[in-house]
This record gives sequence, C-alpha cells and structure tokens, in this order.
Amino acid sequence: MDTEKKKSAYAAAGVDIDAQDEALDQVKQLVHSTRTAGVLSEMGSFGGLFRPELKDIAEPILVASADGVGTKLMVARMAGDFSSVGRDLVNHCVNDILVQGAVPLFFMDYVGAGVLEPTAVVQLVEGLAAACRENGCALLGGETAEMPGFYDKGDYELVGFVVGLADRGKLIDGSRVEAGDLLVGLPSTGLHTNGYSLARRVVFDQLGLAIEDPMPAPAAGRTAGEELLAPHRSYLPSVRSLLGHPGLHALAHITGGGLTDNLPRVLPGDTRAEIKVGSWEIPGIFHLLQEQGGVSTEEMFRVFNMGVGMVLVIDPTTAGEILRQLREAGEKAFPMGTVQKGAAGVVYDLPAEQ
Amino acid sequence: MDTEKKKSAYAAAGVDIDAQDEALDQVKQLVHSTRTAGVLSEMGSFGGLFRPELKDIAEPILVASADGVGTKLMVARMAGDFSSVGRDLVNHCVNDILVQGAVPLFFMDYVGAGVLEPTAVVQLVEGLAAACRENGCALLGGETAEMPGFYDKGDYELVGFVVGLADRGKLIDGSRVEAGDLLVGLPSTGLHTNGYSLARRVVFDQLGLAIEDPMPAPAAGRTAGEELLAPHRSYLPSVRSLLGHPGLHALAHITGGGLTDNLPRVLPGDTRAEIKVGSWEIPGIFHLLQEQGGVSTEEMFRVFNMGVGMVLVIDPTTAGEILRQLREAGEKAFPMGTVQKGAAGVVYDLPAEQ
Repeated sequence: MDTEKKKSAYAAAGVDIDAQDEALDQVKQLVHSTRTAGVLSEMGSFGGLFRPELKDIAEPILVASADGVGTKLMVARMAGDFSSVGRDLVNHCVNDILVQGAVPLFFMDYVGAGVLEPTAVVQLVEGLAAACRENGCALLGGETAEMPGFYDKGDYELVGFVVGLADRGKLIDGSRVEAGDLLVGLPSTGLHTNGYSLARRVVFDQLGLAIEDPMPAPAAGRTAGEELLAPHRSYLPSVRSLLGHPGLHALAHITGGGLTDNLPRVLPGDTRAEIKVGSWEIPGIFHLLQEQGGVSTEEMFRVFNMGVGMVLVIDPTTAGEILRQLREAGEKAFPMGTVQKGAAGVVYDLPAEQ
Repeated sequence: MDTEKKKSAYAAAGVDIDAQDEALDQVKQLVHSTRTAGVLSEMGSFGGLFRPELKDIAEPILVASADGVGTKLMVARMAGDFSSVGRDLVNHCVNDILVQGAVPLFFMDYVGAGVLEPTAVVQLVEGLAAACRENGCALLGGETAEMPGFYDKGDYELVGFVVGLADRGKLIDGSRVEAGDLLVGLPSTGLHTNGYSLARRVVFDQLGLAIEDPMPAPAAGRTAGEELLAPHRSYLPSVRSLLGHPGLHALAHITGGGLTDNLPRVLPGDTRAEIKVGSWEIPGIFHLLQEQGGVSTEEMFRVFNMGVGMVLVIDPTTAGEILRQLREAGEKAFPMGTVQKGAAGVVYDLPAEQ
C-alpha cells in the first residue's frame, strides 16, 4: 500500500493514522511488561482475553469500576509530564474494587487527545504499566483516540476500567458494620485525584505559583508540580492480607470527595461516623488550601481527603491484630474514630484550638 | 449539612456537585432498566458486582474491550441530541467482543464534560441503556466527571467498556481460516463510528450543510443529522446463534477504519482477502463523501466501512446453512469475496465502469 497516498485526504482532515500506529508500537512493550498468567490475547486483537483462576473460589463474582483522573490532567499538562497520571488512574480503580473485597485481574485504558504525541502517550502508558505491575494486574487492552477539534492540542483525557474477582462469601458489603466499630485510617499521599479545580485555583491563580516553584508554608518541601502530581496510592499491598478477615467489616475509599460523603456509603443508615480530628496529621497542603482558599473546615472535609485515603471499619476486639498486620505490611495506620448510633453522616470532633 | 455553605467555595471553582447528583438520580432508573440476573450491586457502590453464570462453560474466558465514539460526538453536539451516541458506543463494544466469540455480560461508561447538563446526561444514558437492553447486557456502573476548563461547555466525551464471556473451546481466533474460505458481509447502517473527521469536513465545511438540511444526491433521503447520527448497529442478534458453529472461522468488525485494515487482523499472514466490489450496494453517503471529498477508492476502503459493518469468514461448504441462519435472523447477508493464498492484505476487484 502506498503510504503517501493513503495519508493524503485523511491527514488533511486532521487525523494522522501513522502517528497513532507509531505510538501504539511504542506502548506494546510496556503493555507486555504487565502480562500475567491469565492473559491469552496479544495487543491489537478486537477484545482482550483473560482466563480467571477460579479453582479456589466457591462462587466467583466480578467486581468492576470505571474512573477518570479529573483535572489533575491539567496539572500534568502544565508540568509537561504525563508519567504519573497513569499511576493515579490504576491505583484509584484498584482501590475502588478493593473496598468490595476484590483483587484486580485486569485493567483497560482509554486515551483521548486532539493530537497523539508519541512522547505523551508513552508517558501515560508508562504510569499505567508501572501501577499495573505493582498491583499484579494485567493491562489487557485499551483504546487510543485522536479527536482533532474536540480536544485541544496538548490535552489528554485518560479513563480507566478495572475488573477484579472476589468470592461471594468474602465480599465486603458493610452488612456487618455496627455501632462501636473502630475506624482506622490509612494515609493518603496528597490530594490523590480529588478537589483539583479548587486546588489549581488556589495554587496557580491566587498564589500565582508556576509549576516548578516551591510550595510556601505550611506546605513547604516540594514544588507545586511535585505536590500536585504526587500519585494516588494503591492500598492493595497493605490491605490484601486482611481480605476475608472476620474483623474487617467495611472499607471506604476516600475519593471523588472527602470523608463526609464517602464514609456513609459503607455504614448502615442508622449509624454515623464520629471522627476525632487530630488523631492523624493533616498534611500541609490541606492547611494551605484552606487558609489561602478561605474554605471552611466543614467544606475541606467534604471535598478533600485531608490525609486519609482509605478507612477500615473494624471489629474493635480485633483491632490489635489488624493494626499489627497493617504495620507489618509497612502501613502507617491510625485509629481515627468510631461508628455510633445516630442519623447517617459524619460528625467531626475538632481539637479545641481550631 | 448546610447546602448553601457546602457549595460556596467549590462552586466558585466551577464544580457544581449538586448538578452532578441531580443527573445521577435521573439516570438511576435507566440503569435499573438494564438489570440482568447477574447484577448484585446497586448504583453508587464503589464497584459494580456481577455474578457470571458459569455452569455450562468448561473453561470461562473473559473478553473485554474499551471504546469511544470519536468525533461523531461533535455531530451530536451540533444536533443538540445526545440520545443516539450511547447506542453507538454499546453496540461498538459488543461487536468488538462478539468477533472473539463472546456474549456481553456487562457494560460500564464514562462521561466527561465541562458542565454536566442534566438533559444531555440523561440523553446519553438513554442511548446506553436502550442498547444494553437490546444486547442483554447490564449497565453495571460508570463514572461521570465534571471537568471545567478541560472540556468546553456543551462538549461530552463518552467512553465505554464491555466485559463478555466465552468458553475457551469456542473462542473465535481465526486459526481455522484457510485459503478458499468465503467472506460474507453484513450491512452497516451508515458511517458507524469511523471517518467522522473527514465526513464532517465534507458535509459541513465543503458542502456547507446545516445539521437539519437534507443530504444532496447521491446520499439524498435523510437530513445531514439523521445520516451522520444513524447509530452503529449491533451484530449480536444476527450472529449469536452461529457462535460455536464449526463453519464460522472468523469474524471481523469493520471499525476504526475500513475493510483494508480490519480484515487482515483475522486472517493468517500468508493469506489475503479478495473482495468483489459490487457484490453489495455501497450506500449513497460513501459515494457523496468520495466525490465531494476527492478521495481515492483505495482510501475510501481504508477509512470507511463502505456499507459493510461485519465480515464473517466461513467454510464454503457450510455457506448455504450459515446464510440461511442469517436470513432467518432477519439479516441481509451477502457473499463478498474469498480468502486466497498471498501476501497479507486486501485486494479489491473493482467493477469495470469505475
């Protein structure tokens, strides 16, 4: 086939099929690096094929979740570095099914752009592939779409989809949660993927920082780019060994908002979470956003994770053992409150000085 | 919680959480209408739960695919009608796993927008839900992201993921394809989701048509909007009864390009497809795009489906029976060529007058 000819009219309409092909070739190796025993297909087939290992599972349940990265993508664009957002996306998806008791089997991605620049596409897939490897999850396939006129040049949309497996009897559905249960928090690594519209306004518009500028107190220590692009972490390595533990009553992924909206999703309707603010250290970035953005404490807890990315709801009689297991997995877990009878919601017990 | 207060600073940053909640409520009923026996979760859980029926399957294989709608979304925006693109997306995904021999279990969607207008979101989910019901596939969950500043107001990105199931022994992998096999085409319903950058340029920029204008000859009969928004059809209803038929050697979904690139994906490397152009009627829209766009015939077959949305590669000795089954399923199938020894690719036998 004549390459010159085939490109002519279609290229004039703004779609460069060869540039897409080139990027696809470059990501093939990265995708291959995530291959697990279940993967049966090669890249480029119409659908990805996966053989789940079902032999020790009484009643297999598929657990699936779809997610995006949100406007954190715009920070990646400012930094000219798309290598971290793929990690955000995979870890976010993995956490979403982990809270139901599922371990990931495979992940699929979608990248949309006005022009697919090979460097950016490879960076995106580098992050996806690294996080897939870390979570033991195959990058089974995906779609890369060049949509000139729809996306601005330089913008990349990144969407992910994970499928995991759980045994029905070991699904975590919150039905065993009761008043008196202990809430145990696991630290976040920053904003994760929440509240970026507000954070960008404060950091870039109000404070006027450039992406490479150092963050001011009380968030000093990293540049604006480093702080705002710190990847959303996966809680699978810490929590995996607790799946099926009778003392683990529920898990809440603090995402798409803060504790205020996420915790009640896994608690019975006649109970509320009582959180002792001060039982963990709220990272400086949240103090900075609150002070500079003029945001109420109530709203901060509604929009941001405030340093808590995952909450375990546990039987208090098993707390010693569960906290020990978490510590042994390298996790800095902290008791942060309890479940109590009351109208659904979250009550924050704030330190007196605040 | 005080609604006024909670919205203040976050709303000022351009994110309206209440508008998102409202749209989510409106789609709940549509999602519920797609519920199948396997669905265990309600909308709003962190991940969707699905129990696959495995009892008659010797070795269950999950088959998954991710897709977008491409710049057909921009036509939907021009028409102010997002009710058809959801159908495009589901059917596209279903076809992609059908060609491997899989029947869909569930589907998940992602909708990204600058501002989520409830009317548009409901239209999008109406199309998704209708196609899910038609394909017997549950709309298990999804993600709706409001990203002001990233998406223009009025633009909607729509991404879908499907997971299907196949028995390993009945997977269609093209390994039985051989020289002498017959190619049977199934008609498309229009452009499906291919080549919209070129089509929009010709129809709207060159011909200067408005979305409600009648299409000119040789594509007369519908308005520009009707023609360009005709939904990508699903081939599951026609092909389902043939899955597992020993005479069905391969299936190719003609998407993301034309016959030229899609057919070789399912043929052995030492064979080529020989297509008799003229063995089916190429719809007027393709003639119009070729004439007005000044596109070579070679490129037309590379970019567009040219009226063929799915190709079956079959054992010629079973042709009578397979064609009869397709006819009984209401399908207008047509023999369109053969597989022959030769260098990989597609050879088009064009009618003399062209």
